[in-house]
Amino acid sequence: MSSTPATNRQIRFARHPEGMPDTECFTLETRPIEPLAEGQVRVRNHYLALDPYIRMRMEKKDSYAPVMALGDVLIGRTAGQVVESRAPGVAEGAWVVGRLGWQDYSTATPSELQSIDTAKAPASAYLGALGSTGVTAWVGLVHIGGVREGESVLVSAASGAVGSVVGQLARRKGCRVVGIAGGARKCGIVREKFGFDDCIDYKADDFLEKIGQAAGDGFDIYYDNVGGPIFDAALPLMRNFGRIPLCGLVSQYNATEPYGVKNMREVFNKRLTIRGFVISDHRDVFAAATSELEAAYADGDLVYEETIHDGLENAPASFVSMLQGGNVGKQLIRIVT
Amino acid sequence: MSSTPATNRQIRFARHPEGMPDTECFTLETRPIEPLAEGQVRVRNHYLALDPYIRMRMEKKDSYAPVMALGDVLIGRTAGQVVESRAPGVAEGAWVVGRLGWQDYSTATPSELQSIDTAKAPASAYLGALGSTGVTAWVGLVHIGGVREGESVLVSAASGAVGSVVGQLARRKGCRVVGIAGGARKCGIVREKFGFDDCIDYKADDFLEKIGQAAGDGFDIYYDNVGGPIFDAALPLMRNFGRIPLCGLVSQYNATEPYGVKNMREVFNKRLTIRGFVISDHRDVFAAATSELEAAYADGDLVYEETIHDGLENAPASFVSMLQGGNVGKQLIRIVT
Repeated sequence: MSSTPATNRQIRFARHPEGMPDTECFTLETRPIEPLAEGQVRVRNHYLALDPYIRMRMEKKDSYAPVMALGDVLIGRTAGQVVESRAPGVAEGAWVVGRLGWQDYSTATPSELQSIDTAKAPASAYLGALGSTGVTAWVGLVHIGGVREGESVLVSAASGAVGSVVGQLARRKGCRVVGIAGGARKCGIVREKFGFDDCIDYKADDFLEKIGQAAGDGFDIYYDNVGGPIFDAALPLMRNFGRIPLCGLVSQYNATEPYGVKNMREVFNKRLTIRGFVISDHRDVFAAATSELEAAYADGDLVYEETIHDGLENAPASFVSMLQGGNVGKQLIRIVT
Repeated sequence: MSSTPATNRQIRFARHPEGMPDTECFTLETRPIEPLAEGQVRVRNHYLALDPYIRMRMEKKDSYAPVMALGDVLIGRTAGQVVESRAPGVAEGAWVVGRLGWQDYSTATPSELQSIDTAKAPASAYLGALGSTGVTAWVGLVHIGGVREGESVLVSAASGAVGSVVGQLARRKGCRVVGIAGGARKCGIVREKFGFDDCIDYKADDFLEKIGQAAGDGFDIYYDNVGGPIFDAALPLMRNFGRIPLCGLVSQYNATEPYGVKNMREVFNKRLTIRGFVISDHRDVFAAATSELEAAYADGDLVYEETIHDGLENAPASFVSMLQGGNVGKQLIRIVT
C-alpha cells in the first residue's frame, strides 16, 4: 500500500524578518516526492505545531540553536501517520510525532520519530500538553525551578501552551498560582479553564498595581516565557531565594531594540536564581516528565486549549498571529481536514 | 587590669545620601563609656574595614539586610584586642574580629566575636583575605559558581578585596582568569601582583573590544561585583551553561537611575545561571572556605593589598574614596596608630 502522491506542498523560508515577521517571509512551493530509500518512512502530516521558538530560528545569527537558511523548509513539529515504510519495525498506519517541518508529507528515519497512542489522547495533544510543550513546562517548573509543595508560583503567557501546563502542574503540587496574560478573555480562561488562583492582564493600565496585590508576600518561582518588561516587573515581587526559570523571551523575539531590565538589583537583594533552559539539554528527565504529564491527564488535572487553523497554506499567517498573541493554548495547523 | 578610658569616639549615621555619599552623611561624636555588664567584654578596635555593602545599609529601604537608622553607629567589621573582660573564657589581650562598628571601643558578648591568630597572619588580614572578604570570594566562586578545574573565569572589580581573592583561588584551581579593573595602574597590579592571566581596563575607550578579545571562546564563570554596564557587557561573552554569581552591584549602589540590562536574551540562548548571594546564608561552608584560604595563604598562593588610612575620624572620607574606586585591595582604617 502506498497513498503517497507525486508532489508535496512545503512552506519554505523566503526572507529574514525585521522585527515582527509577515507572510512575505514564507513561500509555498510544490515539489516532486522522491521514492523512499531503504530504512526510511513517509509520514502524512496531520497537525503542525506553531511555536514561538521558530521565530528565533529566523534570525540571521545563531541563538541557542542554529538558524535556518533561506530556502529551507520551515522547521516545526508535526503529528501524523506513516503512509509508506521501508524501515523494519515501523508499520504503515502508525501514528508518530517528530520535527518533520511545514509540509504535507515528510521523509524520516525511525530515530526521528516518536510513537504516540491516539487511543489515550488525540494526536494533537502529543504536540502540546502531552508532548514537548508539556515537557517544557515540567522541566522548567520541576527540574530547573525545583518547585516545592505549597509555594507561590507566577507564570507569564499563562494562557499559552506552556504556561497553562505550568500552572496546572503547580496547582497539582499544592501551589498557589498566579498567571499573567493579555486581555480579559485570556485571563478568564486561565482562571476558569486552567484553574489558576488568579490571572492579571498585562495590557491593562493598572497591571503593576494588580500584580503587586496578587503577589501577596511574594513569589517563590516566576516561570518566565516572555522576558522584557514583565520580567522586570516580576523581579521586585519575588521572595528571598526565589527561582526564575527562563523558558523563552517571546516579548523580545521581534524587538528591534532589546528592553533594558532595570531591577537586577533584586537578584542580589533577594538572592534569586535566574536560569535559562532548553529542553533538549535535559533528555535525562523526559521520561519522568512524560509520566507525570500522562498521570495528570488521566486524573483530569491537565486540560488544554488549542487554536486550530485549517490548511497548510495558512501556516504563515497563523504563525504571525500566534506571535502577536492571537492564540489561546497551542497554535496548530490542521493539514488534513 | 583595665585600660578603658572614660569616653569613646564613634561615627554615627547623620544623613541619607542621594547617589554618592559625602562626609556630611556622618558625624563624629564622643560618648561616655558605660561599665561592662556581666558576660560582656570591651574591645579596643585597631582596624576598621570599609566595605561597599555598607552603602546599601545607608538606603531608606531595606535591601538584603535592614538599613541603618539615622543616629546609629555605622556598621562595620573591626579587628581589635580585648582590653577588659567580664566574660568567662575571653582573656584580656586576646585578638578578635567582629562587626563592632566605627568606633574606638566596642562592647560585645563572646558570641559576637571570633578569635584570630596574629602569629599566623597580621590582624588586618582577618578583615580581608583570611576573613569575610576571602570567604565571600570562596562562596561565590566555589559554592555558588561551582568552579571546575581548567575553566575560564572573568572577575570584575578585580583589584578589589574580593575580586583579587577570587582570581587567585581560581588560578590555584587551574583556571584561566581575566580581571576587569579601572585604570592601567590597577590592571597592572591585577596582572603582576595577583597573577591574573589578563586584566582589562573598563575605563578605556576600547574596553568592549579588548574584553571581547580576552574572552577567547568565552567564560564559564563571571564573578560579578559591580552589576550595571559591565554585567551587560559580560553576558555575550559567556559560554553555554555559564554561571554568574552576583556578589555585589557596586556600580549601582550610588546610581539614582538604575542601569537597564539589554543582553538578558543571552541568559536564555546560553542557558546561563545567574545567582545572587550573601555569605550570611552560607554559614555551613565557612569552615571549608576558611581552611582553603588559610592553606592558600600558607602556600604563598594568596597575596593581598590593603589601602590603609590612619585615624577613625578619616573613615567617612576613606569610605567615599573607596566607593569611587580610590582603593586597591581592602580599604582599612588604622584606628590605633
